[in-house]
Amino acid sequence: MEKIITEGIIKSYMDDLLKNIEVDVVIVGAGPSGLVCGYFLTKNGVKSIIFERNLKIGGGMPGGGMMFNKIVVQEEAMEILKEFKIRYKKFKEKYYILDAIETISGITYKTIREGVKIFNLINVEDVVIRDEKISGVVINWTSASIAKFHVDPLSIISKYVVDATGHDCEICKIVEKKVGGIKVMGEKSMWAEKGEKEIVENTKEIYPGLIVCGMAANAFFGSPRMGAIFGGMFLSGKKASEIIIKSIK
Amino acid sequence: MEKIITEGIIKSYMDDLLKNIEVDVVIVGAGPSGLVCGYFLTKNGVKSIIFERNLKIGGGMPGGGMMFNKIVVQEEAMEILKEFKIRYKKFKEKYYILDAIETISGITYKTIREGVKIFNLINVEDVVIRDEKISGVVINWTSASIAKFHVDPLSIISKYVVDATGHDCEICKIVEKKVGGIKVMGEKSMWAEKGEKEIVENTKEIYPGLIVCGMAANAFFGSPRMGAIFGGMFLSGKKASEIIIKSIK
Amino acid sequence: MEKIITEGIIKSYMDDLLKNIEVDVVIVGAGPSGLVCGYFLTKNGVKSIIFERNLKIGGGMPGGGMMFNKIVVQEEAMEILKEFKIRYKKFKEKYYILDAIETISGITYKTIREGVKIFNLINVEDVVIRDEKISGVVINWTSASIAKFHVDPLSIISKYVVDATGHDCEICKIVEKKVGGIKVMGEKSMWAEKGEKEIVENTKEIYPGLIVCGMAANAFFGSPRMGAIFGGMFLSGKKASEIIIKSIK
Amino acid sequence: MEKIITEGIIKSYMDDLLKNIEVDVVIVGAGPSGLVCGYFLTKNGVKSIIFERNLKIGGGMPGGGMMFNKIVVQEEAMEILKEFKIRYKKFKEKYYILDAIETISGITYKTIREGVKIFNLINVEDVVIRDEKISGVVINWTSASIAKFHVDPLSIISKYVVDATGHDCEICKIVEKKVGGIKVMGEKSMWAEKGEKEIVENTKEIYPGLIVCGMAANAFFGSPRMGAIFGGMFLSGKKASEIIIKSIK
Amino acid sequence: MEKIITEGIIKSYMDDLLKNIEVDVVIVGAGPSGLVCGYFLTKNGVKSIIFERNLKIGGGMPGGGMMFNKIVVQEEAMEILKEFKIRYKKFKEKYYILDAIETISGITYKTIREGVKIFNLINVEDVVIRDEKISGVVINWTSASIAKFHVDPLSIISKYVVDATGHDCEICKIVEKKVGGIKVMGEKSMWAEKGEKEIVENTKEIYPGLIVCGMAANAFFGSPRMGAIFGGMFLSGKKASEIIIKSIK
Amino acid sequence: MEKIITEGIIKSYMDDLLKNIEVDVVIVGAGPSGLVCGYFLTKNGVKSIIFERNLKIGGGMPGGGMMFNKIVVQEEAMEILKEFKIRYKKFKEKYYILDAIETISGITYKTIREGVKIFNLINVEDVVIRDEKISGVVINWTSASIAKFHVDPLSIISKYVVDATGHDCEICKIVEKKVGGIKVMGEKSMWAEKGEKEIVENTKEIYPGLIVCGMAANAFFGSPRMGAIFGGMFLSGKKASEIIIKSIK
Amino acid sequence: MEKIITEGIIKSYMDDLLKNIEVDVVIVGAGPSGLVCGYFLTKNGVKSIIFERNLKIGGGMPGGGMMFNKIVVQEEAMEILKEFKIRYKKFKEKYYILDAIETISGITYKTIREGVKIFNLINVEDVVIRDEKISGVVINWTSASIAKFHVDPLSIISKYVVDATGHDCEICKIVEKKVGGIKVMGEKSMWAEKGEKEIVENTKEIYPGLIVCGMAANAFFGSPRMGAIFGGMFLSGKKASEIIIKSIK
Amino acid sequence: MEKIITEGIIKSYMDDLLKNIEVDVVIVGAGPSGLVCGYFLTKNGVKSIIFERNLKIGGGMPGGGMMFNKIVVQEEAMEILKEFKIRYKKFKEKYYILDAIETISGITYKTIREGVKIFNLINVEDVVIRDEKISGVVINWTSASIAKFHVDPLSIISKYVVDATGHDCEICKIVEKKVGGIKVMGEKSMWAEKGEKEIVENTKEIYPGLIVCGMAANAFFGSPRMGAIFGGMFLSGKKASEIIIKSIK
Repeated sequence: MEKIITEGIIKSYMDDLLKNIEVDVVIVGAGPSGLVCGYFLTKNGVKSIIFERNLKIGGGMPGGGMMFNKIVVQEEAMEILKEFKIRYKKFKEKYYILDAIETISGITYKTIREGVKIFNLINVEDVVIRDEKISGVVINWTSASIAKFHVDPLSIISKYVVDATGHDCEICKIVEKKVGGIKVMGEKSMWAEKGEKEIVENTKEIYPGLIVCGMAANAFFGSPRMGAIFGGMFLSGKKASEIIIKSIK
Repeated sequence: MEKIITEGIIKSYMDDLLKNIEVDVVIVGAGPSGLVCGYFLTKNGVKSIIFERNLKIGGGMPGGGMMFNKIVVQEEAMEILKEFKIRYKKFKEKYYILDAIETISGITYKTIREGVKIFNLINVEDVVIRDEKISGVVINWTSASIAKFHVDPLSIISKYVVDATGHDCEICKIVEKKVGGIKVMGEKSMWAEKGEKEIVENTKEIYPGLIVCGMAANAFFGSPRMGAIFGGMFLSGKKASEIIIKSIK
Repeated sequence: MEKIITEGIIKSYMDDLLKNIEVDVVIVGAGPSGLVCGYFLTKNGVKSIIFERNLKIGGGMPGGGMMFNKIVVQEEAMEILKEFKIRYKKFKEKYYILDAIETISGITYKTIREGVKIFNLINVEDVVIRDEKISGVVINWTSASIAKFHVDPLSIISKYVVDATGHDCEICKIVEKKVGGIKVMGEKSMWAEKGEKEIVENTKEIYPGLIVCGMAANAFFGSPRMGAIFGGMFLSGKKASEIIIKSIK
Repeated sequence: MEKIITEGIIKSYMDDLLKNIEVDVVIVGAGPSGLVCGYFLTKNGVKSIIFERNLKIGGGMPGGGMMFNKIVVQEEAMEILKEFKIRYKKFKEKYYILDAIETISGITYKTIREGVKIFNLINVEDVVIRDEKISGVVINWTSASIAKFHVDPLSIISKYVVDATGHDCEICKIVEKKVGGIKVMGEKSMWAEKGEKEIVENTKEIYPGLIVCGMAANAFFGSPRMGAIFGGMFLSGKKASEIIIKSIK
Repeated sequence: MEKIITEGIIKSYMDDLLKNIEVDVVIVGAGPSGLVCGYFLTKNGVKSIIFERNLKIGGGMPGGGMMFNKIVVQEEAMEILKEFKIRYKKFKEKYYILDAIETISGITYKTIREGVKIFNLINVEDVVIRDEKISGVVINWTSASIAKFHVDPLSIISKYVVDATGHDCEICKIVEKKVGGIKVMGEKSMWAEKGEKEIVENTKEIYPGLIVCGMAANAFFGSPRMGAIFGGMFLSGKKASEIIIKSIK
Repeated sequence: MEKIITEGIIKSYMDDLLKNIEVDVVIVGAGPSGLVCGYFLTKNGVKSIIFERNLKIGGGMPGGGMMFNKIVVQEEAMEILKEFKIRYKKFKEKYYILDAIETISGITYKTIREGVKIFNLINVEDVVIRDEKISGVVINWTSASIAKFHVDPLSIISKYVVDATGHDCEICKIVEKKVGGIKVMGEKSMWAEKGEKEIVENTKEIYPGLIVCGMAANAFFGSPRMGAIFGGMFLSGKKASEIIIKSIK
Repeated sequence: MEKIITEGIIKSYMDDLLKNIEVDVVIVGAGPSGLVCGYFLTKNGVKSIIFERNLKIGGGMPGGGMMFNKIVVQEEAMEILKEFKIRYKKFKEKYYILDAIETISGITYKTIREGVKIFNLINVEDVVIRDEKISGVVINWTSASIAKFHVDPLSIISKYVVDATGHDCEICKIVEKKVGGIKVMGEKSMWAEKGEKEIVENTKEIYPGLIVCGMAANAFFGSPRMGAIFGGMFLSGKKASEIIIKSIK
Repeated sequence: MEKIITEGIIKSYMDDLLKNIEVDVVIVGAGPSGLVCGYFLTKNGVKSIIFERNLKIGGGMPGGGMMFNKIVVQEEAMEILKEFKIRYKKFKEKYYILDAIETISGITYKTIREGVKIFNLINVEDVVIRDEKISGVVINWTSASIAKFHVDPLSIISKYVVDATGHDCEICKIVEKKVGGIKVMGEKSMWAEKGEKEIVENTKEIYPGLIVCGMAANAFFGSPRMGAIFGGMFLSGKKASEIIIKSIK
């Protein structure tokens, strides 16, 4: 039986990996905005994969606010939540309370069912550049760098890269440092209304081939943070998908 | 808006917490067997909650085998997987390959939808004992012990405690050391067939009020480990629920 | 009995927390100047709370000078010490020696008795900003960041924030980096007379809504440090309260 | 001014230290039971000092239950709390809720005012033995061992040593290992009623010259732990003082 | 070009891996005795692979004695060294000095050329057991355990497992703990003559399916260590291969 | 026998060390380009030694791409690989797949056989400077700095120093910081074709006495990285040797 | 007997400490240059003390070169070594080899015998400043900062402070950062002749009240380092003493 | 000049090392008892060397008692101190106070002058055994094990080994574990009179070829510790030398 397990797992994973050496879109970060972006891309026929450096999916959402595992979502974004079939309770006019773990596991489950392949445990350590266009990502096992094993990476080719890494906007910072031509402003102090308003308009292509979405968008443009309210995150992930769909099709 | 977020999250979480100070069953560990156990308990009207010490759900399943995020399931357990609506591919006669992240997120999502409350970030550091019966668990924030803050715990009262902590069978070890009367044998070397066969029969009440299931059951009775094959885990979680339901009702 | 303990502690704490989501003044840091500031604010009818990141109260005072747990206070500040009923011995003309632990525990006890709620184990990681006014703080469990759990914070709304974090003047540094418009000069070398003279005049509103007091005031304006003499700290804490009282009333 | 500070602090601390090279009682651990023990000893004319290894006072009490900084006290112990002038709220019949920080700072303040000298930052690493009687403690700076500096200790001579180090009962363990003749049973699982009942009767002289009190008493005799309820702790600290007073006088 | 690199590396590695899910012999540890064993096995037609937990090959040999990168070899083993074409200088009658790095890189190179596949960066964390025979190894990425990622392992099936892990004799210890029936004596103090004499006779099948060789053989049987003299290591590796060849053929 | 081992190792190592206090060329880093450089230098009569800070040889090559231990080499560099007698498989037109461990061990073995002495476990922490020429290196045991032992270094005199330290180009950075006159641009994002094209032309004398080769050359001049393709590395190492040979002879 | 030990040690140490709250010269760092400076100051009637942050004396000298515990001294400095009665062997014309441990222990012993008090285990974390003159040092137990105990320091008043902290020139860096008006250039690459020549002329008063000597002098002025040759160190320490003697007397 | 330094240091150190591959006595640990033992051995014509694992000499003596760098010596041992020319002050009848750093540096200096070679930075990790006699030590660089470099050791042959490693009695523990036949009792609690009385009689040959002295003698035989009083240490070191001299001559 061990032989079947070993063979089955290696073969099926390698098939997945080899099928995804070149894709339409690479999304970096399997938090709420990255997952939503992948869901809508694939639903609209754009082949997308997600790289997540951790073992598990979901960014900081499972921690809710201060380890109290609930989140708040505003009216405007509830349509997306309903598409993912997440339960909610009305708290105040236009504000809803959701269970953080139900939300993130439901979105993850539906996104994969839609056809998005998530590769976890893999870190994006650099981008692939061609002339002045981001053309893919450079990946490695997260564990190799934690273990301080000096090991060369491999590359995945794509038409677009989406930076959904949250408030560190790590792909933007790599491009700022190793490619040049952009400037990361950094996340500003808490102002939930302002942050929620600007996150959607900040979602855009900031360098040829590089889209920024979710909290990374606010961090890139120096907009405020919002805490444990997530409506803007979902809307931003969806908008990122729309920008790419319009361009590719 | 910040005030609404703060108030909404604290109030709704505390409601959940206060409603769950006394429950029918406390399950320790939100890996595959614990989740399945909680799902079937709640579906059958037994009020259950799960404590998970990590921020995120799923135990080691998302890592598949050797970080290749696929798992193997045998024929016998496929009925359960179908109940959770997880996709699968036939690999060999009676063996199926599943995407590890789809599986764990789908099970989590369905389990919460069924009514199980998962409290993550909380560590079970001891049990509540009454005469010679396990009568609840002693909990604390995981982060407090990582931060080495010396902080007293609180207690949750229950009729049954399920040890679904995997190969460390941590609750059993606590009872062995601080209550006495049981002996943990420890996980044996890999022998997938034998391990899969024995895991279901090892699922039982090993001390008044304490049920052991999943890999913890094999570790408790000294049965072999099985690696990245998960059929027995699902069957064991289900059996644990059946033992409790029969006893309580 | 466990159920009563669990319920009693959660309910009473949550009451306190929910009552303090919006307050007049948030003081950051429960060292000598922050405690004195809170004491006089509350005594004068201004609702104040203190956030302290550590488990225990008192900043560096319990260590006295070089772990010899005594402190020195000058004549001018003795009136405050007498209000807190701390014993003292005259050492030289105008200089008094106090037991460091008696001093800090006495001030803490009296300050809480006066009505100030201290929330320990909570870190202020950012401020709430509205247009160009500091309007509250962004809080999280200290242990969550030590444990490197990525968890979203919550916010507390206030009319004033007092930076009493000592020589790191952490709130000022956050505002310098994430809001802009101020410049932290940094603590200068030891010169006790000069430091003691300037600490009171440095206690002021340095940004709309943000008061700096105690060693943070000297660090902000580039004045010298003073070592284990604490008269200026007490006077500065009191002055910070007076500035706010005058403005609010 | 620096010269006065340096001289004043060194001289007054060294006076304290030299006056306390030989005392009636050394209490190890400045948590609730140790402080209460010291308070009643000194009030009754028995010269006592406390060694605390941390910078700050109070053991785990400031963390309340699960970082919610409240504690519960039962009727029987409320008389002691009233002597220390701590505020309380009735929660259920015979149960009171207290603010954890007010409680510990009030007890500390009153204990020092009563005349107990607390030496913090000092670790008790061994006992002084004469024939078959504990005759003092062996002390060292806590920081020296954290810094892994190999530095010899000094000794303090006393008629009694009180182990108030909590659930680790460290002094008992040292005596078990380096002197022999006693056996530490270890703390048992949570059972608040039983633990509270037994803690007072467990408070006794377990080896000539060595008294055990507070949670250390339950840990020594293998009684259950109690969580964030503190009545027994106060009663145990008081009883330890009574045993010594009766013997000495 | 990146696509070719990614595809070429993944495909050729996976081919190797899938071809080696079931082999004749798994050697654990790519130090001198494991390499020599693999060389002679393959040369004699027995399909062997080596798992090495580190990134790089060679055990402690490259460090020579006390970081002076030279080693000593006695007359008896020089025939093997000549087969690997390693240069040497005579030092005393019957003793030769070799460059440590030349020796290990030459042996590695020749062993791979002979047809042995070395999988580095992979840790053997357990054995596969069938009734009472070792029937393979349980492997995982070394980096996953260093990174503390909880990830399930995979298994490799074989007729023989060779423990060439050096003085820790790790596979023997796993079998001692998780299978039972053998007892590891542990390496004894230095006595080079005795150690060198006994290492070859200690090389044997110590449990059905498990051969021990190199320093692991001496550690298993409680023979002395030898330091930076390596003749016995080479002879032991060769003898291990002969035992297996005789049995298999 | 122990005495012979001790004496033989110390004497033969010290002979090597004393013979190499002054050499023609010091190469820093025993990765592929440094080894190839040393091989061709010595083959052409230029006395060269290599310092490697790790215990083992080979830089990151043994890790292949993402821990899959294979590497890719292009047509142009295959002549060098053939000189080192490394086996290869054709993958695509002009691209070959090699076993990573065979490649690095084969090159290491042949380079030492050619006469290059490798000193491992030794870190180059600085350069020797004379007027405006690099004239040697400053060495120390790597372990001494890891152990934080403050120990003075020794020096080795040479006509040329080759920086083959890979993408950190450490010797260049030392010269930039402590000597001045050069500027390290830093490695750019992945672009395999461009990187492979530029690495050979970047191989040059960048400061009197200092040659840069391998990935250090691209990092110095701000050219792109290439991942697990190694043709350019070998060509660069060879070119570095040619520059020196032409100059010295 | 324990009481005598405790009392004797505390009393005699505190006497030393209180006698040295105000001195002529504070030397920071008990390496070779600091010790020699203290020796000649005291021999000439200038009261000096040395603060050393480590438990033990001697800086890096005991490690010789690369852990080979020998040092080299040139002709010019041999007169000083003879005054300290250190044995030497001639190696080459004008160069002598000394045992590193004999040298440092002999210098330490003679310096203390001459009347210099060394306070070890104490870190100088800042300076005392008056107008624009360094007027003392701010000290704390080294262990307190390693243990991360937040404890206030004490101050020692002096006419001169000597920075003998070696290549980090820590006191200079503190003055550069917290007082201003000077600029640390940083140690340059190895050039023994140049470094030895410049170290003596670099020994001077670089800010009112602050003398720099030993390797700190070269680091301050951007001169080269010298490795394990120590003649300049001794000459520099002596010159520092002469500058102060001339000024004070 | 660098070449002379490098050559001089390597040559002179290697001469020392090669001359000491076989000696009469190896002393392990350069604390007070080991140094005194070496001094008297060499003075009486027995060739001795000391291995010290740290960079610096002196064990814990420089820390005095509780970091107050003074020590106490009783009348009986003052003769030895006078031979080493250490200054002292009478404190009480028969008790003397000495400066800790003067004492240890003076003893070190005189011991080396007498002809004892100290090898610092070298760890004794095992013994050499012949039949049933300890016949030398197995040494390695301390830094190699701190750096976790797996490097083989070398051996030094001797007639006697002296365990002067202090309260860990490390050599005894190695013999207990790897040779057998002895049993380490472990240090007992503080009782200065008893400890001082027994330390001299405990100084003896506890296994053929192995002498135990200093605090290691008390730890071996289960006698009490003594704290910062050192008379017994010196007497024990001297007695160890006498036992060996009598046997050898």
